[in-house]
Amino acid sequence: MGKKDKNQVKEITPMDVDFPQWYTDVISKTELCDYSPVKGFMVIRPYGYGIWELIQKHFDKRFKETGHENMYFPLLIPESLLTKEAEHVEGFAPEVAWVTHGGEKELAERLCVRPTSETIICSMYSKWLNSYRQLPFLYNQWCSVVRWEKTTRPFLRTSEFLWQEGHTIHETAEEAQEETMKMLGVYKEVAENMLALPVMVGQKSEKEKFAGADATYTMEALMHDGQALQSGTSHNLGQHFTKAFDITFLDRNNEQAYPFHASWGVSTRLIGGIIMVHGDDSGLVLPPEIAPIQLVVIPVAQHKEGVLDKAWEIGKALGKAFRIKVDDQDGYSPGWKFNQWEMKGVPIRLEIGPRDIENNQCVLARRDTGEKVSVSLDGLEETVKALLAEIQQNLFDKAQKMREEKTSVAADMDQFKTVLKENPGFVKAMWCGDRACEDKVREETGASIRCIPFEEEQETLFEGKCVCCGKPAEKMAYFARAY
Amino acid sequence: MGKKDKNQVKEITPMDVDFPQWYTDVISKTELCDYSPVKGFMVIRPYGYGIWELIQKHFDKRFKETGHENMYFPLLIPESLLTKEAEHVEGFAPEVAWVTHGGEKELAERLCVRPTSETIICSMYSKWLNSYRQLPFLYNQWCSVVRWEKTTRPFLRTSEFLWQEGHTIHETAEEAQEETMKMLGVYKEVAENMLALPVMVGQKSEKEKFAGADATYTMEALMHDGQALQSGTSHNLGQHFTKAFDITFLDRNNEQAYPFHASWGVSTRLIGGIIMVHGDDSGLVLPPEIAPIQLVVIPVAQHKEGVLDKAWEIGKALGKAFRIKVDDQDGYSPGWKFNQWEMKGVPIRLEIGPRDIENNQCVLARRDTGEKVSVSLDGLEETVKALLAEIQQNLFDKAQKMREEKTSVAADMDQFKTVLKENPGFVKAMWCGDRACEDKVREETGASIRCIPFEEEQETLFEGKCVCCGKPAEKMAYFARAY
Repeated sequence: MGKKDKNQVKEITPMDVDFPQWYTDVISKTELCDYSPVKGFMVIRPYGYGIWELIQKHFDKRFKETGHENMYFPLLIPESLLTKEAEHVEGFAPEVAWVTHGGEKELAERLCVRPTSETIICSMYSKWLNSYRQLPFLYNQWCSVVRWEKTTRPFLRTSEFLWQEGHTIHETAEEAQEETMKMLGVYKEVAENMLALPVMVGQKSEKEKFAGADATYTMEALMHDGQALQSGTSHNLGQHFTKAFDITFLDRNNEQAYPFHASWGVSTRLIGGIIMVHGDDSGLVLPPEIAPIQLVVIPVAQHKEGVLDKAWEIGKALGKAFRIKVDDQDGYSPGWKFNQWEMKGVPIRLEIGPRDIENNQCVLARRDTGEKVSVSLDGLEETVKALLAEIQQNLFDKAQKMREEKTSVAADMDQFKTVLKENPGFVKAMWCGDRACEDKVREETGASIRCIPFEEEQETLFEGKCVCCGKPAEKMAYFARAY
Repeated sequence: MGKKDKNQVKEITPMDVDFPQWYTDVISKTELCDYSPVKGFMVIRPYGYGIWELIQKHFDKRFKETGHENMYFPLLIPESLLTKEAEHVEGFAPEVAWVTHGGEKELAERLCVRPTSETIICSMYSKWLNSYRQLPFLYNQWCSVVRWEKTTRPFLRTSEFLWQEGHTIHETAEEAQEETMKMLGVYKEVAENMLALPVMVGQKSEKEKFAGADATYTMEALMHDGQALQSGTSHNLGQHFTKAFDITFLDRNNEQAYPFHASWGVSTRLIGGIIMVHGDDSGLVLPPEIAPIQLVVIPVAQHKEGVLDKAWEIGKALGKAFRIKVDDQDGYSPGWKFNQWEMKGVPIRLEIGPRDIENNQCVLARRDTGEKVSVSLDGLEETVKALLAEIQQNLFDKAQKMREEKTSVAADMDQFKTVLKENPGFVKAMWCGDRACEDKVREETGASIRCIPFEEEQETLFEGKCVCCGKPAEKMAYFARAY
C-alpha cells in the first residue's frame, strides 16, 4: 500500500528558509486543500471549505443588504456569445476549456466552460430589459469558473476556482460608476474587518484592467514575502457589453438607449491571502471571524474524574455563542493536541485540568501572541467574546504594521531596484502614465503596477518625476511583484 | 426591437386544460427561471434562486447537525477515472459532456464535466484514508452537474442542474446502510416539514437503481397531474467504488480492508415538485418555510396621508421576524398588485388602508385558502407567525389528501390500466420481483415502479398475486408514470 503517506508533511518548512515551500506545507498539513488527479485543479477539503463558507456568508450578507439578489446562469457558453465583445474574447479565449462533445455526439457549436459570465448574462439581460422602470438590475452569482492556467498554486492560481460575480445594469454612467465604487468599498470593508487583511484600493492601469472594461478597480493585499495579491476587483464596464449584446431600454425620455454595466468579483484566492498574511512558522493563524473553529477545548489529564465532563460542559455552553470543538481524543497527549490546533490556526485554545476545575478557572491561550492567561469560569462567554474581538483587531493591526514596514518609496530605477531587493514589498513611485515605462519597470524588476490610489491617497513624490523616464508624472502608483 | 416581449405570458393556462402548459406559464410569468441560449440549460432567476437558497439552508443545517462537512471537488473528471467502475460508466457515459481542448491545445486525455462525483471523490478518498480511526468520512458537496438530456423541462430535467451530493465512507456494511437510511430520513423530514411535500419512501428496483449501487432508496412525491416525481435518492454503494478505486484502511484487527460507501442527493428538481404539488390556476403557492417573500404589505389608497408611512412601519416591524416586502409602487392599483403577488405564491398578503389605520387593524389574506380576516395591529407578529404555521401545515395536509385521492390499487393488468386512466396517480400493486413483469407494466401503461415500501408500510394485496403474471409476490410496490 505504497500509495499512503505520500502527502504527509512531517514538518513545516520555516518561512524564511523557503516561503513557497512553507505555503505548500501549511495547506497540506492543515488539510485545507489537496492536489487532484486533474492537473491544475484542486480539491478544497472541509477545513478549507469551512473558511470559504464563512467568507461567503460575510460577503453575501452585505450583497443582500445593498439590494443584490443571487441567480444562476449556465456553466457552458456558446463560442458565438464569447466572441461578441472583441476585447473580452481576446482576453479570455486563450485560457478557456472547450466542450466539443455532448451525449456521445459532436456539437454543432463548441461551448466553453465559463471563465466569467458577462457574455451569457448579458444575452439574458437583453431579453429581460425593457424599461428604465426595471432598473437597476442588481444581481450576483456564486459559482466555479475555469481558466486554463499553465502554472498553478492552490488557492492562488488554479484552473478552476470558486468565486462570486456581480453583474449590474444601470440607467446612467454615473450610477454604474457609483455601483463599481460601492462594491469595492464592500470588498474592502469585509477584507479588513472580517478577514483582517489590510488592502490598498485604487485603479488598475490600462494594461492591467479587465478585458472589456472601461476601468478596473482593485484591492491589493501584501503577503509576508513582500509579494502583492490582487484580492478583489470591481469593473466599470461602461457600454462595452450592453452594445455588443444589444441590451436596450426605453429611457425616461421614451427613447431607446443602452444602459451601463458593472461587474465585481472575489474568489477562493482570498484564502491564499489569509494564509500568507497571518500565518507563521507554526502554521495557520485564522482571524476569528472566518475561523471554522474559534476555540478548541483541550482537557488536561482527561482520565481524571470529572475532567471530561467539565470540558464538555464548557464546550456545550460556549458552543451556543461560538464555533467550538472539544478535542477529547484518547491516546494523544495534551501537548500533541496543542501543536495540532496551533498549526490549524484556531484563535483560542482553552485548557482545563483538575486543578483548574478546583479553582473554578481555565487557561486561555491566544494563537496570535502565544499568551496564556488563567480566567474564571464565571462570565467565560463574555471573556471569550472580548478576547476573540481583541485577536481579530490585533491580526489586522499586525498585518497593517507589516505592510507599512514593507512599503518603500523610489525616485528612480536604481533606487527602485535597491529598495525592492532590500525590503521586498510595495514600492510607491511616480508614474507618467506611459505603457512603455510600466513595461520597463516590469521587465527590469518583476514589479507591476498594483494600483493607482484614489485622489485622497495620492501623493506627489520626488517633485512629480516618473520613476522610469523622469518626465512629469501626475500620479503615484503602488508597484510590487505579485502572485 | 422585436426581441422584447417574446417571453411574456399574458395568462396562465388552466391546469385542467393543459398541465404542461400551465407549468411552463407559471415558471415564466413568476420569473422563476428562463431558457438560456444553450439548449437544455436554464437560467435560475432571483425568485427561483431565492427558493433554492432556502431549500439549501434547511438541508445544509441538518447535514451539519448529523456531522457532515462540506468540501469541493473538481468540475472536470478524467475519462480514465470515470471508466473505473463498470456499471457506473455504462450508466453515465452516454450522457456526459466532454472537454477536449484547454487553453487552445488538444488535451492528451478527455475530461468529462461531472455528471456526479463518485469517481473523482473516491480517487481522493483513496489517498486520504489510512486507518479506521479516521472513519467515518462524512462529507458533502453543493455544486452543479451536467447530464446531456435529449428532452428537457425547467427544474425537472435539464442538462445542467444544481444539487448536493453526500459521499460517506464507513468501516462496516451496517454503518453504510445506517447512513443511507438516516439521510433518506433527513430528506423526508425536510421535504415534508419544510417543503410541505408528502413523500413515499422505499427502495428502487434493480432496474431503477443508481449505476454502481448495491441498493437505491428514494422519496417520491405525487404531482397535481398524477405523475410521480423522484425527489431525492440515497444509495448504499457497498464496496463497488472502494474496490474500483483501491480505497483501503487498516481495520481494528490491523488488517487492510475495503470500507463501505454511501451517497445521497437532492437537486433543484425539488422546485419543480413544489410548483406542481402546491400550485393552482392562479399560479404559485409557496410553503412559508421556503417562500422568499412570506408576507407582502400592500397599501390601499396609498396616496392618502399616513398610509404609506403606516405600511412601512408595519413592514419594518414584521421584517425583523419574517421575509417581507412592501409593494409601494406608484401607478398600479391594489387589485393589480393583489394579482401579481397571488401569482407569485406569497403566503400572506397584508392590506392596510385609511379605514384599517383608524381601527388599528389590517387585513390578512391567505394564499392557500383565499380567506381574508381583519386583525388587530397589536400583537401582529404573533398573529402572522401563527398564520404562517397554519398555512405551512395546511399545504402539507392538502397535498397529502390529494395523494391519497390519487392512489389506487390494482389486482391485475386490466384493472391497472383502468385505474391509471380514470384516476392518474400512484397504483399500489403486488410485484413478483421479475424484471420481465416490471418491463411489461411499463410498456403497456407507461408506469414504472417508483418504490417498494419498507416493511412497516408493506401490505399484501389480492392474496399476494403479482399484478402482471399472477404468480406469488412478496412485495407491494408503488407504480406511477413519472417525470
